Amino acid sequence: MRAAIRLLSGERPVNSFPKTAANYRELTPLSYVERAAVVFDDSPAVVDGDATRTWAETFARCCGLGDALRREGCGRGDVVQVMLDNTAEMVEAQHGVPMSGATLGCVNTRLDAATVAYVLEHSEARVLVADARYAGTYGPALAALANPPRLVVVGGPGATYEAFVASGDAGSGFVRPRDEWDALAVNYTFHCNGWGFPWTLPAVGGANVCLRDVSADAIADAFVAARVTHLCGAPVVVRTAIEAAAATRAARGGERAAPLRMMTGGAPPPAATLRRAEAAGLDVTHVYGLTETYGPATLCQPRAKWAALTDAAAAEKRSRQGVAHAATGGVDVLDRDTGAPVPADGATMGEICFRGNIVMKGYLKDAAATAAAFRLGAFASGDLAVKHADGYVQIKDRSKDIIISGGENISTVEIEAALMEHDDVEECAVVARPDAHWGETPCAFVETRAGATLDEASLLAFAKGRLAGFKAPKSVVFGALPKTSTGKIQKFALRDRARAL
Amino acid sequence: MRAAIRLLSGERPVNSFPKTAANYRELTPLSYVERAAVVFDDSPAVVDGDATRTWAETFARCCGLGDALRREGCGRGDVVQVMLDNTAEMVEAQHGVPMSGATLGCVNTRLDAATVAYVLEHSEARVLVADARYAGTYGPALAALANPPRLVVVGGPGATYEAFVASGDAGSGFVRPRDEWDALAVNYTFHCNGWGFPWTLPAVGGANVCLRDVSADAIADAFVAARVTHLCGAPVVVRTAIEAAAATRAARGGERAAPLRMMTGGAPPPAATLRRAEAAGLDVTHVYGLTETYGPATLCQPRAKWAALTDAAAAEKRSRQGVAHAATGGVDVLDRDTGAPVPADGATMGEICFRGNIVMKGYLKDAAATAAAFRLGAFASGDLAVKHADGYVQIKDRSKDIIISGGENISTVEIEAALMEHDDVEECAVVARPDAHWGETPCAFVETRAGATLDEASLLAFAKGRLAGFKAPKSVVFGALPKTSTGKIQKFALRDRARAL
Repeated sequence: MRAAIRLLSGERPVNSFPKTAANYRELTPLSYVERAAVVFDDSPAVVDGDATRTWAETFARCCGLGDALRREGCGRGDVVQVMLDNTAEMVEAQHGVPMSGATLGCVNTRLDAATVAYVLEHSEARVLVADARYAGTYGPALAALANPPRLVVVGGPGATYEAFVASGDAGSGFVRPRDEWDALAVNYTFHCNGWGFPWTLPAVGGANVCLRDVSADAIADAFVAARVTHLCGAPVVVRTAIEAAAATRAARGGERAAPLRMMTGGAPPPAATLRRAEAAGLDVTHVYGLTETYGPATLCQPRAKWAALTDAAAAEKRSRQGVAHAATGGVDVLDRDTGAPVPADGATMGEICFRGNIVMKGYLKDAAATAAAFRLGAFASGDLAVKHADGYVQIKDRSKDIIISGGENISTVEIEAALMEHDDVEECAVVARPDAHWGETPCAFVETRAGATLDEASLLAFAKGRLAGFKAPKSVVFGALPKTSTGKIQKFALRDRARAL
Repeated sequence: MRAAIRLLSGERPVNSFPKTAANYRELTPLSYVERAAVVFDDSPAVVDGDATRTWAETFARCCGLGDALRREGCGRGDVVQVMLDNTAEMVEAQHGVPMSGATLGCVNTRLDAATVAYVLEHSEARVLVADARYAGTYGPALAALANPPRLVVVGGPGATYEAFVASGDAGSGFVRPRDEWDALAVNYTFHCNGWGFPWTLPAVGGANVCLRDVSADAIADAFVAARVTHLCGAPVVVRTAIEAAAATRAARGGERAAPLRMMTGGAPPPAATLRRAEAAGLDVTHVYGLTETYGPATLCQPRAKWAALTDAAAAEKRSRQGVAHAATGGVDVLDRDTGAPVPADGATMGEICFRGNIVMKGYLKDAAATAAAFRLGAFASGDLAVKHADGYVQIKDRSKDIIISGGENISTVEIEAALMEHDDVEECAVVARPDAHWGETPCAFVETRAGATLDEASLLAFAKGRLAGFKAPKSVVFGALPKTSTGKIQKFALRDRARAL
């Protein structure tokens, strides 16, 4: 076979070459798992309870799943939804669904039946792969649909997943994307596929250590038994991981465990939490992003010169959202009206905006919302921030969380960070409370540490010593904080409570 | 400003989104240096003798160079050639030339004037940035051309480079590629731009430590003074680095230096060299590739299970070319006639072929050579190899280096590796010697270690103890080996000598 190379006309010689099968290939993370099956064939890919599978085994199972989905009629443009915990099957779905050519959706397992039905219908899902433990949700959801997807059940007496995977030809290879612009995944919640990390682990031959439930005991067990080196989680998981790291070290008679690196995002980690993590031997990198940016899109890159700072000053630096990572096209803080970058003065507020290939293609079947999000020629995150002189960005608030008191913009994040410095404060959240005179005033909801005897007056005095007068909370409410399934504080519920005070 | 999002018709919803300025950006390594100017602003970017520049300074100078080239009329489709050693200006050219939109060419500084003239004319170079020390070469080359490129001289009394860089606006930013398929570089020799690494260093905030001349003393100085952690070089440079590492350790009173990682390629490193490197504290990764694959395209990924092997067996594994790295689209050993993959039996020979985005666009102005190289639907390297059961490929010979003796294919690499096991052998090369009876027989050229008193008979006996009879050399010639400027042995010269024996 002899290939004819036809040069591109109208181009200068160095740019006259056409793309060929030899020198062009559409990018896909499936290349990593294909390579891992050779390069890391007998290395562990998935550790799920007592079961461990290698990369060679996992690749074969993913190919089987992909081929079974193809035989079910799934291909380019189709959507396959899964409703799974962090399990071996979830790892297989990350690779196996795209291997069929279809687009992967991960349904939040905490949703109610009506919302699950909406997601299945809106995404036009052809197949639903679901853990039997969620039958109480997906059962009614499927029953409510005129054209329900084919159901494949994982676990339980009626399980069909293993037979489904076995029905595919594991040696059939997989479908490469026709165009690298094709959708890999569609996400309806913040569950953006493990922040994209399941696709990257085969690139480095790492193992996915699966935990169904996030508890300090389970994490500590995984630290020891599976020799975990890296993990990700919201700040609330950092606190759990700190406990686990401490327990792990205690179990080893005080011996320092292997280096443990953690990424945290979802909310700016309070400086106090970062300090406690460091003391526990947990090396925390603060990242920031949204489902719309594939997960993390900035990181607070530590700098050597920060070593000269006081602990508090260094921790403050580390709580910033930071800078673009190497694959982020660009991040900046833009004026919300003009789209111009704000000055790097650490004071002028604007909206954090992203440009580049890590930004979503758009909101499915919602051209208006997509156009609004891209109105500045970049993806507008909805987060209000400043840019410091060193180029690091720092969130001051979600646009809807900002408090406007007497015409002054007040950052609730700044107040929360100040309150977290108090030793008796376990967690807190600040929201706007309507005020006849000022319009709004800051109202703090505070969860104290076990055994603490903190009262409103002393906490308010503490806050006034650290914040400008107009920023200090005017009222404090003690008690447990309402949270989402992922550990995010439900500020809308607190706003309701503040209005009722 | 409100962007209108027009959906792609004829596509399913998940694939209906167009590319926009927010979510699509052509890939370019210039993104790394742009980011480094913010994220690693005050970290060293270039260490050249006593001079050190930060990433912020280097980025500004690159932008200045790019803008100066634009003012000179350089842009997309134009070629800018440089004739420089490993210096700060070479690092600046790697980024600054593409910043103008032009394509970068690096002329081998050891070429003669006639060849330099050919390269400048064939590539239609608009500008030549050259070190004054090569005036004896580029002077006559430019004089021989009807339309010589504009000359910018680095160093010496008539230097114009600094003024040229200063004439550009360092704050002007740079030209992004119109299409990521546009040519970044054009290469006429194996000098493929530092194997591509100068483009990656800003991604990790590393510093380029520049050495004009590669000597053990200069390398040892750099190990100590600039705290070098990573280096690349042909096996001949590994030997120099081993000396340097030993000297460095001796200078520290036997203290082990910081971890030192080295990539080597250009020829399969003999197992004996790998063992000596390990003993000297040099962690060597064996990589393989060609200028046509942007430099390294496979690596001999070390496996945990090799720890159970004998030293010799592990060193043999480590001398293999290995597997695709994470960015290589694919590597395989293909039958040279049918293009089918050879069986993974460690015995059947075929040609190492590459597919993917690391493969060159083609040979400039040579469509026939391009078509021949891509004839198997992949880039055919010209290297003959086997594929082992674990998927690792191993070169047996360059197609033109193979010896065919009595109808048997003999790998010269295999014979060379056997001879290198002898303690008195410093370096060796085996070529075919015409033989009336066998057609060809192996002839070994051997450079002995200082002070060694090795004779032909004892070396032949040593070889027969390690190789099948038909593979053992039939003749040995002692003496210095002829080499290219990059340390590669000139086998064509040895073939001439063997013919004349």
